[in-house]
Amino acid sequence: MELSQPAGCWYHFHVPNSDTYFEANGPTFLQGLQTFLRIPSISTLPEHKPDIRRAAEFVASELNYAGLRNVHLIEGEGNPLVYAEWLNAPGKPTLLIYGHYDVQPPDPLEEWKSPPFEPTIRGEDIFARGASDDKGQTYLLMKAVEGLLQTHGALPVNVKFLIEGEEEISGQHIESYIRAQGRNLGADAALICDTEMFAPGLPTLCIGLRGIVYTEVEVVAADHDLHSGVYGGVAPNPLQAMAEIITGLKDRDGRIQIPGFYDRVRPPTKAELDAWSRLPFDEKQYREKEMGVAELVGEPGFSVFERTWARPTLEVHGIRGGFIGEGSKTVIPARATAKISMRLVADMNPADTFRLFAAHVERVTPRGVRSRVTLLNSAGASLVDTDNRYLKTAAAAMTEVFGVETVYIRSGGSIPIVGSFLQHAGIPSVMMGFGLPDDNLHAPNEKFHLPNFFHGIRAVARYLEMLGA
Amino acid sequence: MELSQPAGCWYHFHVPNSDTYFEANGPTFLQGLQTFLRIPSISTLPEHKPDIRRAAEFVASELNYAGLRNVHLIEGEGNPLVYAEWLNAPGKPTLLIYGHYDVQPPDPLEEWKSPPFEPTIRGEDIFARGASDDKGQTYLLMKAVEGLLQTHGALPVNVKFLIEGEEEISGQHIESYIRAQGRNLGADAALICDTEMFAPGLPTLCIGLRGIVYTEVEVVAADHDLHSGVYGGVAPNPLQAMAEIITGLKDRDGRIQIPGFYDRVRPPTKAELDAWSRLPFDEKQYREKEMGVAELVGEPGFSVFERTWARPTLEVHGIRGGFIGEGSKTVIPARATAKISMRLVADMNPADTFRLFAAHVERVTPRGVRSRVTLLNSAGASLVDTDNRYLKTAAAAMTEVFGVETVYIRSGGSIPIVGSFLQHAGIPSVMMGFGLPDDNLHAPNEKFHLPNFFHGIRAVARYLEMLGA
Repeated sequence: MELSQPAGCWYHFHVPNSDTYFEANGPTFLQGLQTFLRIPSISTLPEHKPDIRRAAEFVASELNYAGLRNVHLIEGEGNPLVYAEWLNAPGKPTLLIYGHYDVQPPDPLEEWKSPPFEPTIRGEDIFARGASDDKGQTYLLMKAVEGLLQTHGALPVNVKFLIEGEEEISGQHIESYIRAQGRNLGADAALICDTEMFAPGLPTLCIGLRGIVYTEVEVVAADHDLHSGVYGGVAPNPLQAMAEIITGLKDRDGRIQIPGFYDRVRPPTKAELDAWSRLPFDEKQYREKEMGVAELVGEPGFSVFERTWARPTLEVHGIRGGFIGEGSKTVIPARATAKISMRLVADMNPADTFRLFAAHVERVTPRGVRSRVTLLNSAGASLVDTDNRYLKTAAAAMTEVFGVETVYIRSGGSIPIVGSFLQHAGIPSVMMGFGLPDDNLHAPNEKFHLPNFFHGIRAVARYLEMLGA
Repeated sequence: MELSQPAGCWYHFHVPNSDTYFEANGPTFLQGLQTFLRIPSISTLPEHKPDIRRAAEFVASELNYAGLRNVHLIEGEGNPLVYAEWLNAPGKPTLLIYGHYDVQPPDPLEEWKSPPFEPTIRGEDIFARGASDDKGQTYLLMKAVEGLLQTHGALPVNVKFLIEGEEEISGQHIESYIRAQGRNLGADAALICDTEMFAPGLPTLCIGLRGIVYTEVEVVAADHDLHSGVYGGVAPNPLQAMAEIITGLKDRDGRIQIPGFYDRVRPPTKAELDAWSRLPFDEKQYREKEMGVAELVGEPGFSVFERTWARPTLEVHGIRGGFIGEGSKTVIPARATAKISMRLVADMNPADTFRLFAAHVERVTPRGVRSRVTLLNSAGASLVDTDNRYLKTAAAAMTEVFGVETVYIRSGGSIPIVGSFLQHAGIPSVMMGFGLPDDNLHAPNEKFHLPNFFHGIRAVARYLEMLGA
């Protein structure tokens, strides 16, 4: 693929303290990112195990090249963690730098305008699965550190990289690692680039994430498929039963019907709600251009930010069972399975929420069928206190690089590791996000805005400088 | 495959007028049936077009071998019809003999105990896709005529074979053919073997069939898939919407909620209900052994026979959309599609029923999504008057061969051609069925009871003899 860039390339930074290394290496950084994006490191599909390893090895070689020490793969039950460190800044804080090299599956493939694993630049965006989530953002962390090390031969603070390969499957490897290390992890704060800016050009720190409880609900009626002509009228239909269960979980206004579900929801403060109301937000643009829907739905009486950041939700992701091929088949399937997840907010507890969910599924399961609920994965919600040095310095660094005041937002998504860092290692997470709201995460035509890639490199480098000053 | 048969083979008939040809050729008939069953003539899957043609040519060659005249394939827009005739019995009635050589898809493959297209005999049953529906029953019609022609050099009545290859896709080819021929079809009645006996050893004539309206409902929310973390709380979810539509179509007791849906339902007569109540029926056996379910469901206040034979139903066959692979994917899909069919009873009209359905889907579609309904195929219900010569003679022939009084039942399934024969050609259909209730039609491990195969050959031959007497 040819790189065609507009005149006045975005990797020429017009910001204070710009570094010639970053300027000179823009095209190289871009080529490296493309190499990273070509690896189909899909963690949800077992057949991509070899690609997972290739991606881990690529990350390790990049960290080596950057000048980090003690670079190695931490093997375990799941996909390897990539570790690297630089600890020669005595008396300075130690930052744990986190990212992930695994990606979501690309389906539906036919909706991609260019192949998901052949990164393609159109305009100022690079399109590929993982471009924004999270290879682009993981790669910029490595390039920021590389730039400082290659220019100065040293870093202003101590760093430990921990790049995982199971973020999209809420993998247990890093979770076990952090749990085992606990307070011995030896870091003062974590730096994570896996979130997004509120709007193009608006530097953003994410201070809240929703948790998740991802389940599979199976409904079984018969011990074999039945003919809908012969048995229609007396045969329990697992797909009908699943529809009844699903509508028993959430009403037509989006209110979740599980008793006790909302009991521990902590409402946002008045100050936070006020700040959200000042964010530049065009609902029509959001609805039509970003989401591509005719109408927003959800709980009455809550704003868009409350519904996506501060309220728990429940979604069906797929229903398996019966016949979905071309044409018609008159089958009443023996069983059906649905993937259903809930997003949690502070102070909900994943284990309690799963218990309430499972009990309610049982309650709304119609007669004639049996249901069984399995927990696939879960993570707690997180909400970071804004009154700490690491967050405030990050805001200052971003404000300097982008030339605009940094805003604090939350995200509706889940980054389980944030909860683990706090719970097990006792450290806060700084979420500097460089994605954009229309990056199509987990969807066809995922992209990363290249100016954010290059500004992100510089912002992370400035953050380390200011933190070590 | 080796043929291993119990001592006292079932092809030795202990009935009056037994024919040495049938006795001598039992093993050959069985081998021929196996050859027929090995052809994966799945009409719902386009990639099986070559197998469809092979099956049609196999049927034609068997009809030629039987001694029929003017054997040829009638080509048209869909799959070929196989035609054959013998018209040298002046003054005798002409019977149109119908069967179909196409079969349902075999999925789910992993549930078959032996491969679906490698016919396997276990006990007194032969297992294969199409064994009972309808290759076994089509084949026995050809063998009955072959036996009479090879023994006597003539038939007692005139016959026209019309064997189609689109029954499982409610194909339009035979429908157009019958419509075009109309009263010029030149037949007095149709003979169809595509139904079942009420119980093993109980000769059965089916006089009523349900019709069908098979649809696809599509729900569209966004123009691309959305991340359930980022947009959950405001994004319309087509799978949730589909569940709401489905539960809006039928309540938890099985009552269809479409206004006007039941208006034209003709209740069974008192005499028919009385006859049904005398049928040998063990509900526990039916529920546990035949269906493999814990509980029967359906409209309160109606018996099992009423619910499956005389009441219309609505079933969901599959829901496509989102992620159903291994593991978890946090997607809110842009669209979802469901296959939903209704079974109709006399005097419901398919076109009217589809209109009522489509209007109600529109009515129960929640806000935030658009729905679209497509009619995939339809057929009217049929109910044959028992007071006619062709039906009475068939009952007498079956009673003679099986040695037990023939019963009249209905079937919950649909054979669209029965309605066409009546509507366009003005002829009644005699449905002599030799399948059994546990034959697993349209499901894994479909089988045909071999004693019924051989008795069926003899019963059809006796029917022709008695009709021509």
